[in-house]
Amino acid sequence: MPIGHAAGEQANAGLMRVRFREVRSATEELCRHLTAEDMMVQSCEEASPTKWHLAHTSWFFETFVLREFVAGYRPFDERFVWLFNSYYKALGEMPEKKLRASFSRPGLSEILAFRQHVNQAMDRFLEAGAPEDALDRIQLGLHHEQQHLELIATDIKHAFFTNPLHPAFAEGRLPAAEMPAPPINWVSFEGGLVEIGDDESEFCFDNETPRHRVFLEPYQLASRLTTCAEYLTFMEDGGYLRPELWLSEGWDTVEREHWQAPLYWRKDEAGRWQIFTLRGWQPLETLSETPVCHVSLFEADAFARWAGKRLATEFEWEHAASSLAIGGNLLEHGVLHPTSAAAGPGLQQVFGDVWEWTASAYTGYPGYKPLPGALGEYNGKFMSSQMVLRGGSCVTPASHLRASYRNFFQPATRWQFSGIRLADGASE
Amino acid sequence: MPIGHAAGEQANAGLMRVRFREVRSATEELCRHLTAEDMMVQSCEEASPTKWHLAHTSWFFETFVLREFVAGYRPFDERFVWLFNSYYKALGEMPEKKLRASFSRPGLSEILAFRQHVNQAMDRFLEAGAPEDALDRIQLGLHHEQQHLELIATDIKHAFFTNPLHPAFAEGRLPAAEMPAPPINWVSFEGGLVEIGDDESEFCFDNETPRHRVFLEPYQLASRLTTCAEYLTFMEDGGYLRPELWLSEGWDTVEREHWQAPLYWRKDEAGRWQIFTLRGWQPLETLSETPVCHVSLFEADAFARWAGKRLATEFEWEHAASSLAIGGNLLEHGVLHPTSAAAGPGLQQVFGDVWEWTASAYTGYPGYKPLPGALGEYNGKFMSSQMVLRGGSCVTPASHLRASYRNFFQPATRWQFSGIRLADGASE
Amino acid sequence: MPIGHAAGEQANAGLMRVRFREVRSATEELCRHLTAEDMMVQSCEEASPTKWHLAHTSWFFETFVLREFVAGYRPFDERFVWLFNSYYKALGEMPEKKLRASFSRPGLSEILAFRQHVNQAMDRFLEAGAPEDALDRIQLGLHHEQQHLELIATDIKHAFFTNPLHPAFAEGRLPAAEMPAPPINWVSFEGGLVEIGDDESEFCFDNETPRHRVFLEPYQLASRLTTCAEYLTFMEDGGYLRPELWLSEGWDTVEREHWQAPLYWRKDEAGRWQIFTLRGWQPLETLSETPVCHVSLFEADAFARWAGKRLATEFEWEHAASSLAIGGNLLEHGVLHPTSAAAGPGLQQVFGDVWEWTASAYTGYPGYKPLPGALGEYNGKFMSSQMVLRGGSCVTPASHLRASYRNFFQPATRWQFSGIRLADGASE
Amino acid sequence: MPIGHAAGEQANAGLMRVRFREVRSATEELCRHLTAEDMMVQSCEEASPTKWHLAHTSWFFETFVLREFVAGYRPFDERFVWLFNSYYKALGEMPEKKLRASFSRPGLSEILAFRQHVNQAMDRFLEAGAPEDALDRIQLGLHHEQQHLELIATDIKHAFFTNPLHPAFAEGRLPAAEMPAPPINWVSFEGGLVEIGDDESEFCFDNETPRHRVFLEPYQLASRLTTCAEYLTFMEDGGYLRPELWLSEGWDTVEREHWQAPLYWRKDEAGRWQIFTLRGWQPLETLSETPVCHVSLFEADAFARWAGKRLATEFEWEHAASSLAIGGNLLEHGVLHPTSAAAGPGLQQVFGDVWEWTASAYTGYPGYKPLPGALGEYNGKFMSSQMVLRGGSCVTPASHLRASYRNFFQPATRWQFSGIRLADGASE
Repeated sequence: MPIGHAAGEQANAGLMRVRFREVRSATEELCRHLTAEDMMVQSCEEASPTKWHLAHTSWFFETFVLREFVAGYRPFDERFVWLFNSYYKALGEMPEKKLRASFSRPGLSEILAFRQHVNQAMDRFLEAGAPEDALDRIQLGLHHEQQHLELIATDIKHAFFTNPLHPAFAEGRLPAAEMPAPPINWVSFEGGLVEIGDDESEFCFDNETPRHRVFLEPYQLASRLTTCAEYLTFMEDGGYLRPELWLSEGWDTVEREHWQAPLYWRKDEAGRWQIFTLRGWQPLETLSETPVCHVSLFEADAFARWAGKRLATEFEWEHAASSLAIGGNLLEHGVLHPTSAAAGPGLQQVFGDVWEWTASAYTGYPGYKPLPGALGEYNGKFMSSQMVLRGGSCVTPASHLRASYRNFFQPATRWQFSGIRLADGASE
Repeated sequence: MPIGHAAGEQANAGLMRVRFREVRSATEELCRHLTAEDMMVQSCEEASPTKWHLAHTSWFFETFVLREFVAGYRPFDERFVWLFNSYYKALGEMPEKKLRASFSRPGLSEILAFRQHVNQAMDRFLEAGAPEDALDRIQLGLHHEQQHLELIATDIKHAFFTNPLHPAFAEGRLPAAEMPAPPINWVSFEGGLVEIGDDESEFCFDNETPRHRVFLEPYQLASRLTTCAEYLTFMEDGGYLRPELWLSEGWDTVEREHWQAPLYWRKDEAGRWQIFTLRGWQPLETLSETPVCHVSLFEADAFARWAGKRLATEFEWEHAASSLAIGGNLLEHGVLHPTSAAAGPGLQQVFGDVWEWTASAYTGYPGYKPLPGALGEYNGKFMSSQMVLRGGSCVTPASHLRASYRNFFQPATRWQFSGIRLADGASE
Repeated sequence: MPIGHAAGEQANAGLMRVRFREVRSATEELCRHLTAEDMMVQSCEEASPTKWHLAHTSWFFETFVLREFVAGYRPFDERFVWLFNSYYKALGEMPEKKLRASFSRPGLSEILAFRQHVNQAMDRFLEAGAPEDALDRIQLGLHHEQQHLELIATDIKHAFFTNPLHPAFAEGRLPAAEMPAPPINWVSFEGGLVEIGDDESEFCFDNETPRHRVFLEPYQLASRLTTCAEYLTFMEDGGYLRPELWLSEGWDTVEREHWQAPLYWRKDEAGRWQIFTLRGWQPLETLSETPVCHVSLFEADAFARWAGKRLATEFEWEHAASSLAIGGNLLEHGVLHPTSAAAGPGLQQVFGDVWEWTASAYTGYPGYKPLPGALGEYNGKFMSSQMVLRGGSCVTPASHLRASYRNFFQPATRWQFSGIRLADGASE
Repeated sequence: MPIGHAAGEQANAGLMRVRFREVRSATEELCRHLTAEDMMVQSCEEASPTKWHLAHTSWFFETFVLREFVAGYRPFDERFVWLFNSYYKALGEMPEKKLRASFSRPGLSEILAFRQHVNQAMDRFLEAGAPEDALDRIQLGLHHEQQHLELIATDIKHAFFTNPLHPAFAEGRLPAAEMPAPPINWVSFEGGLVEIGDDESEFCFDNETPRHRVFLEPYQLASRLTTCAEYLTFMEDGGYLRPELWLSEGWDTVEREHWQAPLYWRKDEAGRWQIFTLRGWQPLETLSETPVCHVSLFEADAFARWAGKRLATEFEWEHAASSLAIGGNLLEHGVLHPTSAAAGPGLQQVFGDVWEWTASAYTGYPGYKPLPGALGEYNGKFMSSQMVLRGGSCVTPASHLRASYRNFFQPATRWQFSGIRLADGASE
């Protein structure tokens, strides 16, 4: 995250003060319909309770900004200093992740007071004109908060799916697709020796550095994401029954977990597929032209093999995306579910809708150095057994994204809004 | 529970109406300091969230009384009919137990409205004069509620112990013991052919029937429960390090679970033992004369072997207790923790303080028949791999107990208020 | 096993010398068709490799007889002193049970030499006239060897079942049943105050002592064991699909293990049931009149409930069997599989064919004291979470059995030759 | 494995006939001191019994050569066709891997006869002049056999380590190091756009293709492997106690598995380290100058971080090795353990001694296509969650290696002969 090359605009504490308020408010705004009880649920090992997210993001500012830069700052509660540490071992012991479901105390009102306490202290700090290195930390903290904002959406979706009553997170129906998704066009790229990673034009995480050269063979990307209808064809062609389509580890997972469809798909009593969304159950037929979502890397890879194609490497993806403006079906659109692609030339749905699994394992770029100190644990220590995803989803805030952004999860992960874009070599 | 031989008093619907209100109120009274968030926590696989207990006990009346006996009764919510079923498979599918932690919806206010709905319907039903067989069912439902009342106390104790902040359930300190526990006297019983089980004088569960004859050799019981101080001596004598003291399955558990003390004991930084209670952490030294609590059958058995004694059978216990009045440190005393024995002749601490592990496996009495229908699943289907406990604890309501009462848990269970009374053969 | 009341005959060292040779030879005789490779297989956690059984039984004599009673005895190999200890923790550390599959060294020839070494030392010791207490130990050791003889048969059956080629242990076909099993008669017993346990007429294990009084209500036992045909009726009536027939723990096991039939049953490609025996696969139709075998306590209990009956307690069984001579389809008959009942009055198939699950949990008799020292671990430490079986099986040697004999296994156990005899209360 | 570009020499069936005999004999030669019982042991889930390796390698020739190319070929045993399939799902069902420990039948003599049967049929086929595409398959089969030859050595090492008697695989002592390992020199490479993968000069596996361009920044490699003495310094500096040195997944593994040293290290009663080798236990002090071995990727990575260095990528490694001749401490040297580095210029110990963990995840090269048919399962389906190792070990046959060879294992794997070579960026 090479904080340090923050541009003039971000360096301005006044502007940062505005952004701080916006990002923090957005988090609370997202939770406005959740009850204190909803915010207690931790329904799978990947997830955390909403209340914990609200506290941990405040802990981040308290730990890495206020306690380091503000003389005389008094923590809201000394116990929170270790209680809401997630995984920074350099800072000392912390509770096991699974214990977060036991945090009935501190109660929600106390956590909201904690947020308020931190907000006020931060506001005073920014008002007084924070130094450059503090601003860099704050920028990092805001991107951290936006990551957890997205996690709140994904975690509460799983929580409500686990609840046998299947409540809806948001009211209102999803927009019905009016027309079929446009056919896939294949967009060609010449490749060659290209530059990858942080271009120092804006904030980035440390795992996007250093910028370096990668050689790419000519390649093509599908103009849009794979739809539910296309994925259903794969399923109906025995996709989940044919080991030859799968990575060995993927097939083992299919058998062990009895996968037969993406996460959040079920058949109703009449045998019709339904999909659970943040707005409750929807018939597949109303979503068939939207991008398939909540698939693992294994499913994305098997689908691509079935289709005679492959997934892009993260470098192919970044090279293709680097000239495109951030936009698309992101959190601000308020749909909270992927939507169908528009017709048009070039690549569609590059940012937003779903995170796109790539064929690239998550490792450090040549010469990669984690941030010094505890913040070095932010990204670097996860560089094994994970795969890179690119592009952002319908629950990612727009200001959080850029072409060089690297998301990463274990290949069996499905609870994120993750989907598929096909790739191929050069046409001949 | 041979409901059917309810005596005249209970048969009176008016009196039942009073008891119904008392028991139902007691449940809510116990929870009065808990927040909606507290009532979400399910911190071990034995436990359920408080909110679930509140709902399930109401479900019991709705299912087995109102829907069966009240023409035109409309359930509070049709979905609750399966949502709050615990384990009655004859009634259809139900959610897995572990999912109860995901029930943020229905919210607490809705559950309290559910309780109110059931209370009002029950009140109208009793006011109109319920038939005898319905009264029997209601009596069963009230004892069922009292069992869950005790579970609320044990489950929330575990929940607060799991919370890294270790909040206290109740305010105020435990009464400090003023003097040492009296020395153990050995109370002798001649045995012979004795009668065991339901004597038809009051309500009982089906597992207490039929009354039958058992032959007992002469035996002795310790006049009081084993204290923490005595148990500490066992620990300091290598109790948890000497396999020869343990059942094979117990020793495997010691090694696998790294047991070194009862549940809820820990050492502080200075190496002094502390005990977690419903009133928070207490130094062992203030509790050393109180009965040791939260031990498994394995620990109780190992302690007895170390002491050169044994545990009583459930028949020895019942024979000894059958002439004693219900009394002692029960829920109504409000201490919420075992207290030291009084001096005095005969058996002390027979009812209340802690459930006493016996040497008896939980099986059906000769000629045992479960209740017909779904209620037959109440007790009978658990008659394997469990051990009987007798006597009640400091969180059991007095009106719930009798000498023939059989509690039962797996031998490794520790989250209940369970302790030790030594037994021996006849002195020679 | 109150060795100490051995009668004159056994007390005679000369006779013991003969019995020693017979029992030891029988073990080796049973293994005569097994290869060194067969004797390496440990196919489930209950089982041990044959070679280990051969060594451990010799270890028992070396440890408890030769090293204790024979001055100057030199162990065959000092390392075997701990290597072949099974579970006697008082003797020190031992390898984990699952490691036995790694004992390629010592090789079979070395183990046979170990047996020879022990046999010769024992022979010299007996020839010289061993003292009474040594003879008691030897008697215990021979019964120990006979238990392992039976385990060799049950373990190798599982090993060959696990091998995808399913080799047969013994050659030749099972005798085809010529006629249906006779109908069940119900044999009545008056009960009353009866004596149970060791009557001091012969060898017994310590868990059969002390003899004591038990009160029995009047009861009836089925005249013969439950047949495969009867069990198939239960299966075809949805026996494995109806939770109301099962103990709760049993139903959990059915679901977790996907039980649909007894162990060793499978359907062939045409949907016909086959049963794996020590003589290979047999069509069910040729075995339908033989006792059902390799069922757990849970299945036995569910079958009995389905049949409107129950299992006998171990006391009912022993009282009924105590006047009967040992005989029936035992190891010496060489069939190695249960056979159909003969017609005739009274109880049939009491000894041999299959171990009969009882409704009794395995606990100590009143006043039970384990043997002193390490041998106290033989039986007593297993007295939790196990159920008693009575009667012996088609792979039990005749000289190993008596009416008071208590076998015991966890209720989910199926790899033993275990079956069902129905019981009931008095007819009215 | 682009079989197809076999050079003239390999294309000659006569020469292949010689090589076939050599490779097959080498496998049997390695096993010459193992008993039939040794060949039954499967001591961890990664390993297979030796006997299974002997059979499976023959199955490979039978399946992919004889049954495809030799008209009228009759399999040795029809059941072996599925019994010894490892993981080729396109060929149908196969036994679960863990069942291999139950294959007491077929016996070793039968497996040796199977090998003989296949050898003779292959010899006749080669004598008659096999076609080019068959020769390619045979070449693949011989490299497959050499992989299993190495697995026999690694698996039996684990088997003998698991056996509490810890037998030695080979006689004789390891050569004592006469002098310290030379100091590490840093060998510099300029990098740039380099070519990676199969250069068509000899046999390769499909995962080495296609040859493609990779851009490398300037880098340095350590002139020799990391020694036990160096690794011990890391351990003594708290290497296994400091989470900041570890990948997150690695640290979880350290804690879960209680790692404190490489696999095969233990402390004797006096607290001195010993290392288990194929020649039995050796004091660490005699091996301290030899390369550390049997470490996971996690340990290699943590060591490198502690040392202020990193691991090489597989591309850096291959570029550096591509000009070096195959040689070093390989299987043919007969040491069966890594040995200390020689002094000298340039890179030492590149081939042999230990497989070197790289920082590269195992994925397909750009444009990678697996072989068609079942053989496509050989490599491609394992391309997730594994890391690449390069260079070969002291139990790899020399004729099996080349600079482009890619070995791969999960990052927690330790039972292979795997070690560490440090890398770094350009010196400044």
